Amino acid sequence: MAIEGSKNQKHSGRIRYGMVGGGQGAFIGAVHRIAARIDDKYEFVAGALSADPAKAKASGQELGLSSDRIYSDFQIMAKAEAKRADGIEAVSIVTPNHMHYPVAKAFIEAGIHVICDKPLSLNLKEGKALAALLKKNPKVIFALTHNYSGYPMIRHAQAMVQAGELGDIRLVQGEYPQDWLATDLEKTGQKQAAWRTDPKRSGAGGCVGDIGTHTYQLGCFVSGLEATELSAELTSFVKGRKLDDDVDVRLHYKGGAKGHIWASQVAVGHENGLKLRVYGTKGGLEWVQADPNYLWFTPLGGEKRLITRGGAGSGPSSARVTRVPPGHPEGYLEGFANIYTEVARAIEAKRAGKKLDKEVQFPGIADGVAGMAFIEACVKSSAKNGKWIKV
Amino acid sequence: MAIEGSKNQKHSGRIRYGMVGGGQGAFIGAVHRIAARIDDKYEFVAGALSADPAKAKASGQELGLSSDRIYSDFQIMAKAEAKRADGIEAVSIVTPNHMHYPVAKAFIEAGIHVICDKPLSLNLKEGKALAALLKKNPKVIFALTHNYSGYPMIRHAQAMVQAGELGDIRLVQGEYPQDWLATDLEKTGQKQAAWRTDPKRSGAGGCVGDIGTHTYQLGCFVSGLEATELSAELTSFVKGRKLDDDVDVRLHYKGGAKGHIWASQVAVGHENGLKLRVYGTKGGLEWVQADPNYLWFTPLGGEKRLITRGGAGSGPSSARVTRVPPGHPEGYLEGFANIYTEVARAIEAKRAGKKLDKEVQFPGIADGVAGMAFIEACVKSSAKNGKWIKV
Amino acid sequence: MAIEGSKNQKHSGRIRYGMVGGGQGAFIGAVHRIAARIDDKYEFVAGALSADPAKAKASGQELGLSSDRIYSDFQIMAKAEAKRADGIEAVSIVTPNHMHYPVAKAFIEAGIHVICDKPLSLNLKEGKALAALLKKNPKVIFALTHNYSGYPMIRHAQAMVQAGELGDIRLVQGEYPQDWLATDLEKTGQKQAAWRTDPKRSGAGGCVGDIGTHTYQLGCFVSGLEATELSAELTSFVKGRKLDDDVDVRLHYKGGAKGHIWASQVAVGHENGLKLRVYGTKGGLEWVQADPNYLWFTPLGGEKRLITRGGAGSGPSSARVTRVPPGHPEGYLEGFANIYTEVARAIEAKRAGKKLDKEVQFPGIADGVAGMAFIEACVKSSAKNGKWIKV
Amino acid sequence: MAIEGSKNQKHSGRIRYGMVGGGQGAFIGAVHRIAARIDDKYEFVAGALSADPAKAKASGQELGLSSDRIYSDFQIMAKAEAKRADGIEAVSIVTPNHMHYPVAKAFIEAGIHVICDKPLSLNLKEGKALAALLKKNPKVIFALTHNYSGYPMIRHAQAMVQAGELGDIRLVQGEYPQDWLATDLEKTGQKQAAWRTDPKRSGAGGCVGDIGTHTYQLGCFVSGLEATELSAELTSFVKGRKLDDDVDVRLHYKGGAKGHIWASQVAVGHENGLKLRVYGTKGGLEWVQADPNYLWFTPLGGEKRLITRGGAGSGPSSARVTRVPPGHPEGYLEGFANIYTEVARAIEAKRAGKKLDKEVQFPGIADGVAGMAFIEACVKSSAKNGKWIKV
Repeated sequence: MAIEGSKNQKHSGRIRYGMVGGGQGAFIGAVHRIAARIDDKYEFVAGALSADPAKAKASGQELGLSSDRIYSDFQIMAKAEAKRADGIEAVSIVTPNHMHYPVAKAFIEAGIHVICDKPLSLNLKEGKALAALLKKNPKVIFALTHNYSGYPMIRHAQAMVQAGELGDIRLVQGEYPQDWLATDLEKTGQKQAAWRTDPKRSGAGGCVGDIGTHTYQLGCFVSGLEATELSAELTSFVKGRKLDDDVDVRLHYKGGAKGHIWASQVAVGHENGLKLRVYGTKGGLEWVQADPNYLWFTPLGGEKRLITRGGAGSGPSSARVTRVPPGHPEGYLEGFANIYTEVARAIEAKRAGKKLDKEVQFPGIADGVAGMAFIEACVKSSAKNGKWIKV
Repeated sequence: MAIEGSKNQKHSGRIRYGMVGGGQGAFIGAVHRIAARIDDKYEFVAGALSADPAKAKASGQELGLSSDRIYSDFQIMAKAEAKRADGIEAVSIVTPNHMHYPVAKAFIEAGIHVICDKPLSLNLKEGKALAALLKKNPKVIFALTHNYSGYPMIRHAQAMVQAGELGDIRLVQGEYPQDWLATDLEKTGQKQAAWRTDPKRSGAGGCVGDIGTHTYQLGCFVSGLEATELSAELTSFVKGRKLDDDVDVRLHYKGGAKGHIWASQVAVGHENGLKLRVYGTKGGLEWVQADPNYLWFTPLGGEKRLITRGGAGSGPSSARVTRVPPGHPEGYLEGFANIYTEVARAIEAKRAGKKLDKEVQFPGIADGVAGMAFIEACVKSSAKNGKWIKV
Repeated sequence: MAIEGSKNQKHSGRIRYGMVGGGQGAFIGAVHRIAARIDDKYEFVAGALSADPAKAKASGQELGLSSDRIYSDFQIMAKAEAKRADGIEAVSIVTPNHMHYPVAKAFIEAGIHVICDKPLSLNLKEGKALAALLKKNPKVIFALTHNYSGYPMIRHAQAMVQAGELGDIRLVQGEYPQDWLATDLEKTGQKQAAWRTDPKRSGAGGCVGDIGTHTYQLGCFVSGLEATELSAELTSFVKGRKLDDDVDVRLHYKGGAKGHIWASQVAVGHENGLKLRVYGTKGGLEWVQADPNYLWFTPLGGEKRLITRGGAGSGPSSARVTRVPPGHPEGYLEGFANIYTEVARAIEAKRAGKKLDKEVQFPGIADGVAGMAFIEACVKSSAKNGKWIKV
Repeated sequence: MAIEGSKNQKHSGRIRYGMVGGGQGAFIGAVHRIAARIDDKYEFVAGALSADPAKAKASGQELGLSSDRIYSDFQIMAKAEAKRADGIEAVSIVTPNHMHYPVAKAFIEAGIHVICDKPLSLNLKEGKALAALLKKNPKVIFALTHNYSGYPMIRHAQAMVQAGELGDIRLVQGEYPQDWLATDLEKTGQKQAAWRTDPKRSGAGGCVGDIGTHTYQLGCFVSGLEATELSAELTSFVKGRKLDDDVDVRLHYKGGAKGHIWASQVAVGHENGLKLRVYGTKGGLEWVQADPNYLWFTPLGGEKRLITRGGAGSGPSSARVTRVPPGHPEGYLEGFANIYTEVARAIEAKRAGKKLDKEVQFPGIADGVAGMAFIEACVKSSAKNGKWIKV
């Protein structure tokens, strides 16, 4: 279970990283920073935490950055850091969606690894441009924080599917109900609500972009399936809301499996009710994000079994991303940290010129582009009354 | 809580009833008989328990019927019982679907009340014919055993919606996963599987007819909403199966609310996983059939609350259909019995020439016709790639 | 699963039974009557439902008894029914505890089978007297409604222990928290609270007698263990209450296993929170009365497994006392009915002069005497500061 | 929710700390280090990670310590660090129990703050000696990692009790079942099992010292009650085990409340099943460590309510120790981190010469001494057949 110094090697030095976005009042930036710290693989040394110079400075000071590495312009930061001998090796992008593309572009071009919040970009076109750019810059590692795929029991679920314990997959049922936008919160000035319901900053998808993509990515991650087409209905239940706050998607996967996603921001009583169920010819799985240390598995004709993180029945793919014994819960931050640590392993391998262990996995540009394609297909299908659209 | 002799009145004599179907080897017949006994409102006195005379006789003797009231022909039974001074006042129809129509017709025409298993008939046409027949025979009471609407906490959920505690309903999420048909059980000779996957005996809907209709009826019952159109995808995951074993339905209700139903017979790990969730502008509800004594309610911005049958927060609409104190679970049979007891109240009111109490409710011909319309629309929509079809 | 006519035999005629206690305003009488009806083994034909003649009459009429079989004196009833050719074969005793002994005595002496509510009597002396009386009347069947031992999953738990699936039992943990007496309800005139907190009608144990005995009996039933000594602390948390409303008991069983019981009537938030856990060298079990269709089992070193009534992993000992398929919950009344049906099998065997099937089991006089010994030992131990007392 | 830089102040520099114990192969040392990192309040700079110089060196290098600050002798470390201008301000003690006292003594005498794993010491005498030593060294902060009291919902539970929402407390029910010592694991050479079942390294209590003290401390923390006397039964179920592996304790609190603790290391099916229930005249609470983001509360006569960390109904005392929104689970490490962060606040206040905010709380020397008194009383009571012993 020991992730720090996991291979009894001498400590090779933390990865220097910076951050764009995530200043005072932001939410996800702090999550990224904690995630980076948990396994002690990173050192936070630079930031353009806000585009507002005063706020950038206050935020940077609060977080202990040297004053010469507090920026308010990400372009300047990318260039300056690329030049320094002790410059950052990686950057975390935690801005609203519309800034992902320009920021990622600047750092990729500066040869700096990127850890970007999801969804990838404002639209599919930008996403494809980033993919092309990365092709030209093969030394740059790009990670997308679809953090739920970092949960140990999700890793184990994936391993069970791969080992054939579910047989041929027939059905993938994903849902992600929330209720924080059940009222027109965006009109109250709440910062998160404001940008997430604004097409200019979020893109064409509201709920579908924010949490629909998470659900979609997780279903693909665990089942190993690839979607071919979808039919979607997007709804804005709250009057005057510009983007969808509820989405219902049917999916067809290669090989005949089917899927369904329901994501909602108006389902009163749910906080972050992400749930994934996968059914095959030989068994069924169920996992709930709010109780992430449990994985339910029923073999065909057998009893329901509760597999616990680190407990009986959980194997090496979850053990390598776990820290504490079974019965002591790990949570959201540890799952998020697993993404950071997996990326660190990739960076360390690059540093050392070694091949990356096969078991290391984190969502990357392909997941990002797939997510943007998913959003676009959903929006298009919904506009056409649920017509089936190729993904 | 005392349902027997609930109004301190003198016992007025049990309702004499008979049964068509439900002989040895059947499942639902015994359920109906227990349901009829629980509150002591019925006396079982006649039956055409099988079309096979030997089996009908053996079944009838086993259940203690007089030999002169053991029939093998339901037509003869209807006529004979109608003539007797002590003839049955009601009949329960517990045959496969294709027999519902002819049997119901015979008894309605004989002036005998009918309690019919669901779905109503083989197709919508038959269902409408029964509705027309009942219009001509206004003295005949017709009940359809959508038994889930008999559960006390479902009654309370309906009452909460009616009282406005959820505000305007936005979303109705119903699901009913099972796994008993995850393999081609019908090929093993299993009787239930054989007829339920056979279009000649089940009608055009397999999973959608058997459990999809239950889910649909329950959603309408609790929410009070009426569907206007639907889009459906029916799938037969098991090779060679003639009817659907999985169904995904989108619903539009009058007034703008939306709904979704997922029912499946191949979802490994689920026994009878019926679950209903209703979300409004002011609150959300959740109920699970396997744990029917609980109703989850979250008021907007408040804590999740667990309302228990008979416990704090549960009101008169559930109390009148409950028998034991909170914490002592009631189950499927008691819910089923509530339908029988509600019908008994209606029959007693007819006997006495009194108006029926408003609070008495049980599913009837309208629910049956709606169910058949639902099945037909689902089949049609699925054949057209999920096109929206008026219900 | 078919309990009615379970062996494809011709119906042999219901068992005629009567009741003492259980008139208007009572609780447990109605439960007994429903339990007797569920499997159609009994016919309710006589009653001394109240000692008050007017109330006895009204109650009897409401329940459809012939006027000549409505009694207000149980002694007269016992004699009159014993004389009739169509007299009752069995009587249910559902009075407060202090009446159990005299009523049971009268009917045993009249040669009528007795189904008695628990605890057996007002004190151990009475209990032993009944045991002696039954020895002299070996034709009389005596059953005590420790109804929880009728739950299918409790039967399965017992079978698992007997099959050695838990190895040697080390620990039995029983608890039964309630909250209905968290205030001085007995002072409001509530009938149940009044007699259950009154030593003259309840005996020396309050909480310990009412629900402590249930917990004790259930632990012995499942584990197969016999207690040798106990240490108890009884508390009356509510001021002015004459009997205990909370009890904590340590148990030593033959062979070295240990046990613990906590029962409370003041644990706010619990309705009928009976829970039993049994731990052995090879596995552990957990069962909760409010969710009785589930049995948790963990084999040493294995995953937790959820065994469901009628589902995978549940065997013949639960199947023979179950009626509906897995996923359709059975509850308190069905568990109670199982006791009645088991007794009916015993009565039918007596009628037929046949030996009783070994698998038939119901709590009897020995359980009753053990329960009284348990209460007395608890009271004694508590008075001596928790001193260990032989049971 | 922002714990890092929580008051918009400039970063004041991390607290330099070291560690004694926690080298390769240890468990709890890594937990402490992660806990120290999560909120970025500490910098790990020195260690005597093992008494074996080679192992100490390897462990120190792996964790990135400078070679001049890798020690194998804690006495030398204490003196050396006390002399350095950049010496550690705090030390974490994560050795087996018998080393707590000498190590703590050395660092207290060196004027270095101590964060010590629980239980405090090998016996009560040592504990009292440490208390006396701290009295003489008032500048030294001493914290004991009863980490469960760092969970947000435990903080909220405490706040609810303090606010009177439960009324007068009547009952505290704590349990902590585990199953890792259900077999004689100590004979296999497993390091954790070996020292925890060895009186020389663990002290007189096995299960009671390891997890019994946690349960006891948590019950006192939440209820605010102080125990006056106890009656205990300690059992060693596994043959040949020198210390108890199961403990049953009755508690009397000042003012008349009562308590019960069951802790076990042989309860098959439990990983770390710590559960606390508190009942008062006006309400009841329930919390389970494995699902720590939930707190159940039932007001007398009301519905059960599920309060979630950060969600509706959870107040400021939990909010100040929480990082992510409701529905995104926090776990064991975050709870542990809260203890570290609270201690950091105390150290920062000392540094600044400021008074500590009242809301800051962490277990200290008093809890440690109380825990040792608890163990000693349990051992004594058990030896005398459960006699009541003053605490």
